[in-house]
Amino acid sequence: MSNNVIRRLPRYLRKLDELSESGVDKISSRQLGELLGLTSSQVRQDFNCFGEFGQQGYGYNVAALRAQIAGIMGMERGFTAILVGVGNIGRALMENFCFADWGVKLAAAFDIKPALIGTEFNGVHIYGMDELESYLAEHDTDIAVLTVPKTAAIPVTERLTKSGIDAIWNFTNVELTEPNSSTIVENVHFSDSLLSLSYYVAERRDESAAKAAREEK
Amino acid sequence: MSNNVIRRLPRYLRKLDELSESGVDKISSRQLGELLGLTSSQVRQDFNCFGEFGQQGYGYNVAALRAQIAGIMGMERGFTAILVGVGNIGRALMENFCFADWGVKLAAAFDIKPALIGTEFNGVHIYGMDELESYLAEHDTDIAVLTVPKTAAIPVTERLTKSGIDAIWNFTNVELTEPNSSTIVENVHFSDSLLSLSYYVAERRDESAAKAAREEK
Repeated sequence: MSNNVIRRLPRYLRKLDELSESGVDKISSRQLGELLGLTSSQVRQDFNCFGEFGQQGYGYNVAALRAQIAGIMGMERGFTAILVGVGNIGRALMENFCFADWGVKLAAAFDIKPALIGTEFNGVHIYGMDELESYLAEHDTDIAVLTVPKTAAIPVTERLTKSGIDAIWNFTNVELTEPNSSTIVENVHFSDSLLSLSYYVAERRDESAAKAAREEK
Repeated sequence: MSNNVIRRLPRYLRKLDELSESGVDKISSRQLGELLGLTSSQVRQDFNCFGEFGQQGYGYNVAALRAQIAGIMGMERGFTAILVGVGNIGRALMENFCFADWGVKLAAAFDIKPALIGTEFNGVHIYGMDELESYLAEHDTDIAVLTVPKTAAIPVTERLTKSGIDAIWNFTNVELTEPNSSTIVENVHFSDSLLSLSYYVAERRDESAAKAAREEK
């Protein structure tokens, strides 16, 4: 499956959840495309990648399509995660981000601050960083959420990969691995979405300026 | 310019910055594509959207390409932003996200907590929520960063749009606007990247299982 399709699937999933909540149980590729800014043929093509869905002319069953996408995204695999670095962004995730909604169990957190170690935050136990290796030796863990300060990003990543972690959800804005590393890294770059927003604002301002110029003539 | 191109431009920009820092000043479309998991023809096509770059066979000048992309993304427009909601995620952005690096000036923050109002965080003044309208009446503001709790997302958005804000960087996970609203909303959905990561982990586990099964035979 292409990277672009994989990137679009979570958006389909969110939209299908919204539709489901509003009581919609069937939707055509055209309608779904309109809701997401895609053409209906793009939608059909995306779903063709993973087999047949829906019936020509009858639309997709919202719940069935949702379940199929969830399966493809590994949401029913019972993946477990640890979070490393209980600073602002770490706390924001522990407090507001519902890992369980996406099929991931947040099993433990780690920090170096003595005041945090041994406490619980939102039901998750916070261990000391010196307990990282022993914890990982004893607990099957699929994903490490990396929310440490920039300076700690590389050394902590090395400790994680040495302990067998092969997937990192990276919030540090630091490039973690060499190009051919076998570690799966998903970088969260806030700047990407700010720049997209900035592009659309610039476009809007240009349109307004052009309109004002036309009206002046 | 297509949505997909606009989404890729920030990735090009980050990669060009990295290349520049490593002292690389020229790069071919093939090399740039390899670094980003794109084909060279995709790279050339993306840049063709906004005019001619580079010379056939000579590659792109890294600095010139970077400047061109920054211009297209509106990074030199001097956009200003306010941040609404100084909780964990708001503080994380104020503390660790360098708005200025992306051409945006974070001019002010707003919260309802009396203990925060009138203080500064990382050089940014925090106003009370009741000062929002008067502040916006007096200060040209392009972007509102929305980091309020879910329950406040809709009412705060209404106040912002009534005060003339037409671009919102939305961290609340709440759908803010009607489909045909003229407000530009850029949603930050952490779940999208977690699900992509989850997909790749599932794929990796399936490959390992298949390999183990083959070896057992």
